[in-house]
Amino acid sequence: MIPTQHGRRDTPTQHGRFGFGRVRGHGSRLPAARGGTGSPPRKPGEATMAESSGRDEWDECLDAALEVARQAGEVVRAALKTDKEVLTKSSEADLVTETDQKVEKLIISFLQHKFPSHRFIGEESVAAGEGCHLEDAPTWIIDPVDGTTNFVHTFPFVAVSIGFAVKKQLELGVVYSCADDKMYSARRGRGARCNGEALSVSGKHDLSKALLLTEMGSSRDAAEMKTTLGNMHRLLATPLHGIRQLGSAALNMCAVAAGFAEAYYEFGIHCWDMAAAAVIVREAGGVLVDTGGGPFDLMSRRVIAANSEAIAGAIAAVLEQRQPERDDAATGPH
Amino acid sequence: MIPTQHGRRDTPTQHGRFGFGRVRGHGSRLPAARGGTGSPPRKPGEATMAESSGRDEWDECLDAALEVARQAGEVVRAALKTDKEVLTKSSEADLVTETDQKVEKLIISFLQHKFPSHRFIGEESVAAGEGCHLEDAPTWIIDPVDGTTNFVHTFPFVAVSIGFAVKKQLELGVVYSCADDKMYSARRGRGARCNGEALSVSGKHDLSKALLLTEMGSSRDAAEMKTTLGNMHRLLATPLHGIRQLGSAALNMCAVAAGFAEAYYEFGIHCWDMAAAAVIVREAGGVLVDTGGGPFDLMSRRVIAANSEAIAGAIAAVLEQRQPERDDAATGPH
Repeated sequence: MIPTQHGRRDTPTQHGRFGFGRVRGHGSRLPAARGGTGSPPRKPGEATMAESSGRDEWDECLDAALEVARQAGEVVRAALKTDKEVLTKSSEADLVTETDQKVEKLIISFLQHKFPSHRFIGEESVAAGEGCHLEDAPTWIIDPVDGTTNFVHTFPFVAVSIGFAVKKQLELGVVYSCADDKMYSARRGRGARCNGEALSVSGKHDLSKALLLTEMGSSRDAAEMKTTLGNMHRLLATPLHGIRQLGSAALNMCAVAAGFAEAYYEFGIHCWDMAAAAVIVREAGGVLVDTGGGPFDLMSRRVIAANSEAIAGAIAAVLEQRQPERDDAATGPH
Repeated sequence: MIPTQHGRRDTPTQHGRFGFGRVRGHGSRLPAARGGTGSPPRKPGEATMAESSGRDEWDECLDAALEVARQAGEVVRAALKTDKEVLTKSSEADLVTETDQKVEKLIISFLQHKFPSHRFIGEESVAAGEGCHLEDAPTWIIDPVDGTTNFVHTFPFVAVSIGFAVKKQLELGVVYSCADDKMYSARRGRGARCNGEALSVSGKHDLSKALLLTEMGSSRDAAEMKTTLGNMHRLLATPLHGIRQLGSAALNMCAVAAGFAEAYYEFGIHCWDMAAAAVIVREAGGVLVDTGGGPFDLMSRRVIAANSEAIAGAIAAVLEQRQPERDDAATGPH
């Protein structure tokens, strides 16, 4: 169960990837099981300095994120079964419910109580007029219900997404898939897990044999839809094995981390959709790049999350680019 | 838990739709819980004539289908974790594995032993040159691994699909979702279930507020892809809430039966992809129609499976039609 290096595989071999076990308790610690990016390979049982000296600075934050993600997920799961009052935001397809707002408040109030000096970027707070600007201070980036349209339809791909950045670097991410009770999490340099099992991206590096994930998004602007569907057409003609759409950016990215698909890309995504899952993808051995192939920028509203630079580059080369307004447009990029 | 009529709902209310319970044993009987299409509403506890006189003619077939679907599903689930030798069929994206062939043989040999006079239509048998022609004799229609591309990628939406028709009428269907251990089943006139819980389609009848499922298919022919993506564009512009793609026709249709989405449509689907799930959709209160809005034809390679005539008709009115070669082209439609 403890990989000695960032091994990539062509087929899944880890026990338990199809298991249905539950995370054993709130705030359960991730075992320190894996060398981080750039760390030398470790043997099973070998501890890093941080581990041998006990908990490090952000361990308490991961514990808190796991605990509140589960609490929030229970609220979301219960709400899935009830009547939902639906409001629209930017378009007829951009939805919000009372649950999104209630769960975001629950998460922020829990974390604010534990970490009074930390900052917060939350989907619903931003919608309500708060700023969306990543600074150096420790910052939580929260999507209370990733996959709101799915939630409205009871389509069972809905996640609570909690990312955390310090000095603009993503330190940890927790994505809780509510309907199937799967807790994905990662700490920078410590590997990624789902319900306790290590995650690893797929080893397929040939785009013509890849399975991709993307979304059509909530924009109903004719030009944007044309670009979105045109990109799918061009990629399919590469050819590819196929394209899937689950309706949750965070769960699409976790599927890449789990090795179920080679890549996910999207234009128009927000920082709260991808902050947590970005850490999970990287710690599973994957890469994040801009849709144009350049460096990933959390505020840019563009992402390719892939199992490898090879797949990410091949996708970037095919995509017709578009630049949605940045998440931090009001204050400019930092 | 026992509906007295084909009630439709706008939001899910049944207990257990997000439960993770397992079917209690092989061949567990479906409780006789529900009036069939055209039957008068029944009160809880009220038995039909067939039920009060005990098992009817095809109950043994349903028992057998449930038993062999679980056996087959265990083989598929185990194979998901191993190396897979992949061959291509009609295109680079039309895949087949040793597991498809092995599992189809397992299912046919099990059913043939129990029902020596029955006929079989199986995806891999047809690929190997056997006929694909629905006659009056009792006929099993089998897809051993629905979602083969998903299977190849370990993307966890893979199903064993077993339908059964007598006098060209679909009598029962069993769809076993292997990765999450969900057994969907239905008997004509007796309702549809997943892991013992009754299924019911959604009550949303406004296409502009619908969630749809479809697939881009395995054809990489430029004209076909253009029609496929053009149809998605037109539907999104209706507008819709969204489009999702799971990569398994049977599981897309079961999602409609479960009320998670309002409809699924596809051109190019085969009879073995939809025979079992067709019964499940109908028994959950849904409808099946041709993509042009006319009567559903199992051999036509076209389908809209919807929660209502209203949604199905609205989709049919938007779709640009195409007619793939019929499944029974060699012998002509019957």
